[in-house]
Amino acid sequence: MPDTIEPRVLKGFRDYLPEAELARLALTHKLERVFGSFGFVPIDTPALEYAEILLGKGGGETDKQVYRFKDHGDRDVALRFDLTVPFARFMAEHVDALYLPFRRYHMAKVWRGENTQRGRYREFMQCDFDIVGTDSAAADADIILTIAEAMRALEVGEVRIRVNHRGLFNRFLAVRGVAAKSVAVLRTVDKLEKIGAEETERLLTADIGPENARAVLEFIHPEADFSSTLEKMYSACGETDPEALAARNRLAQVRDIAEAAGAAASLVLDPSITRGLDYYTGLVVETSLADMPQIGSVCSGGRYNELASLYTTKKLPGVGASIGLDRLLAALEALNRSGDRPEVTKLLILNLEDTAQTQPQLQAQAQRAAAALRRQGIAVEVFPEAKKLQVQYAYAERKGIPFALLLDGKAAEAGKWPLRNLASRSTRDFSSLEEVADALNEPRSPDAKKPAGSGSDA
Amino acid sequence: MPDTIEPRVLKGFRDYLPEAELARLALTHKLERVFGSFGFVPIDTPALEYAEILLGKGGGETDKQVYRFKDHGDRDVALRFDLTVPFARFMAEHVDALYLPFRRYHMAKVWRGENTQRGRYREFMQCDFDIVGTDSAAADADIILTIAEAMRALEVGEVRIRVNHRGLFNRFLAVRGVAAKSVAVLRTVDKLEKIGAEETERLLTADIGPENARAVLEFIHPEADFSSTLEKMYSACGETDPEALAARNRLAQVRDIAEAAGAAASLVLDPSITRGLDYYTGLVVETSLADMPQIGSVCSGGRYNELASLYTTKKLPGVGASIGLDRLLAALEALNRSGDRPEVTKLLILNLEDTAQTQPQLQAQAQRAAAALRRQGIAVEVFPEAKKLQVQYAYAERKGIPFALLLDGKAAEAGKWPLRNLASRSTRDFSSLEEVADALNEPRSPDAKKPAGSGSDA
Repeated sequence: MPDTIEPRVLKGFRDYLPEAELARLALTHKLERVFGSFGFVPIDTPALEYAEILLGKGGGETDKQVYRFKDHGDRDVALRFDLTVPFARFMAEHVDALYLPFRRYHMAKVWRGENTQRGRYREFMQCDFDIVGTDSAAADADIILTIAEAMRALEVGEVRIRVNHRGLFNRFLAVRGVAAKSVAVLRTVDKLEKIGAEETERLLTADIGPENARAVLEFIHPEADFSSTLEKMYSACGETDPEALAARNRLAQVRDIAEAAGAAASLVLDPSITRGLDYYTGLVVETSLADMPQIGSVCSGGRYNELASLYTTKKLPGVGASIGLDRLLAALEALNRSGDRPEVTKLLILNLEDTAQTQPQLQAQAQRAAAALRRQGIAVEVFPEAKKLQVQYAYAERKGIPFALLLDGKAAEAGKWPLRNLASRSTRDFSSLEEVADALNEPRSPDAKKPAGSGSDA
Repeated sequence: MPDTIEPRVLKGFRDYLPEAELARLALTHKLERVFGSFGFVPIDTPALEYAEILLGKGGGETDKQVYRFKDHGDRDVALRFDLTVPFARFMAEHVDALYLPFRRYHMAKVWRGENTQRGRYREFMQCDFDIVGTDSAAADADIILTIAEAMRALEVGEVRIRVNHRGLFNRFLAVRGVAAKSVAVLRTVDKLEKIGAEETERLLTADIGPENARAVLEFIHPEADFSSTLEKMYSACGETDPEALAARNRLAQVRDIAEAAGAAASLVLDPSITRGLDYYTGLVVETSLADMPQIGSVCSGGRYNELASLYTTKKLPGVGASIGLDRLLAALEALNRSGDRPEVTKLLILNLEDTAQTQPQLQAQAQRAAAALRRQGIAVEVFPEAKKLQVQYAYAERKGIPFALLLDGKAAEAGKWPLRNLASRSTRDFSSLEEVADALNEPRSPDAKKPAGSGSDA
């Protein structure tokens, strides 16, 4: 016995077996269609970049999670850990070859050497979409509408798209005289759902004192509807500040556009949404599923003033969001109450022992039929060997193939094409391949409406 | 001025700008449909694996092209350099969770630190498809048929699918008494097209002497058709060897199946096709484009006895091929005589200065119209700011958007929807959004059949 190497993947990495990969492809294709319907175009960037580009000049010590190494030319390189930094580099490099506003999406893998004990993967897909080169409310609204349409296309049920505006929060903190603590406050508030109101108040009190902590908790509590929440927030900002007024008007306009486009029902103004990261400067957004709130946000983002300031002096304001593909895939699997699995092959042409024809003849005949059916848009495979029938049926069962053609020389000579529904175990003879194709292309299963006399239970 | 980092990618790496990425996605989607129609299912594997898995136990010194490094846990890891080795590991690991024969495809990036002076990229896509777990002629033929159908779907024009069988070549070399030199001979013959007949003869002579060299050159010269080439080869093998007979019958059966399935016209038996790699054991195949033979093989592969013997003692014979996506993309670009570029957005709703409505009102109205048109399957974007009209037209031009809606409050009040064909520069008023949608969904351009009186040249 040869000395084999144990087949295994690295911790935190995983294979996608066909069912998982089919589900992933179905998801990304739906998203591509949605992005396309809003004019977003796809890009891709290298998996490997200069470490300096990905981490910035001083990033050496801080980014322990990054896969970083010396390449053959002794260059300091790293695997991308998100799609935002490569996009910033991309825009700085190519802005003159593009058009602004530039709407792009990017679905690709990223790598982080994270602690896998938290259930995180070290390789995972990200899906980002952004509109860069405009500071308009229309672009903010477009991101919201795209999220709404993406969730509708993915059939994840009702969603809550929760928005907020950094300008209001910042102005509120300034009015309370604690603007200097804004980063700490935003980070604490961002954890509200995870840690609860009591712990949030304790942390806030430690940073800004008990009175301010209570004021923050009052500020971040949503009112009955978008407008009353907005007016409460605005009045807490003192109603005199032009930045606060602009933020209020921006949120109102985003709401109006969402209403005009039929997406207002999902839109919630939630002052507790802050998106911990401090590079957001305007709108911030998080999306949760009404049926599965516990999985957290499935799409988050916001507006930033400067996408690419590390690489260019050009001003590139933008707004965008990131879809959590892994969370959505997990949600879709959990929500799939019917237990449907994606169908690949519609029809298996069985390989029968045959007295009328040789195996090679039968194989040629099977492939002729398969080619004809594929031209009718049917996914067909030919079982390649004359194995026992139960082996071939078991194969069809394992692969989820719904129909089988029991092709043999005798049946073909008699002008019969016996089509078997593998779920109902009934077989029906058709008199031509065209009829088989028509039956398989019907939305309903072919044996649901047998003409009298032509059906036979096998 | 801030000290920015120069935005650049590593040598041998590249960004995909939208046009290139759209072309790549269009190609991969077409291939996915073809693979699906033959019952192939997709899989994916990690980009990063244990170096031992990818390189084998003794692979340390030989694979200088591999990106290999120590990860945070001091594991010896490497980026995959092809999709074959990960697939072998995958099959060994998951064979019990799968079904045989297992038909998979895998389209993904691989990384090789190759010398970029040869015009090679260090990051590129591979596309492999295989049928594992069967040694049947039907599986060999299925690979050929899948190649033929893939090339048809990609509209690359006429192709030549050139096949050969290692068994015949090996037997022929044994008959000549030079079987020990078979690896060297196969490698030399594989280079025939690149180096020419004279240099091939010189190299062969050095290895196996002048008489054998001439015999090899005679053996690898194709005859007028598949059958006569096959019979010449078989007779050169002495006609007594069971291995040669099996190989001859296998090729004949593959040809018969291709004929039955309508793919025989592309199929050529070419005894000079050897595929240098010595792990092929039966059928070998290469595919070239009749209109662009100079780009070389766009799809190559063959049959192997042992896919995963490094990782398992299970026998996993298979047959498969690899599509050269980069070559095909280059070929498609060169063959695209019309200069078509992929269309993303069909309609741009312009953002007009308006006396009848405020900007926010107009924006809401534009987004309402966009949402309604998207529900009719039209890709629409709203220009997000009231920039000068020529700026908005220039944007549409750069992005290849064919139509614009000149929406303003007055036109809307008058029940007019002015749709402009940006190529012909003619504008036509429609009386409802439904009519706009119908016009845009027509195969022909909406201004091709103006009703009398309703057209206006703007």
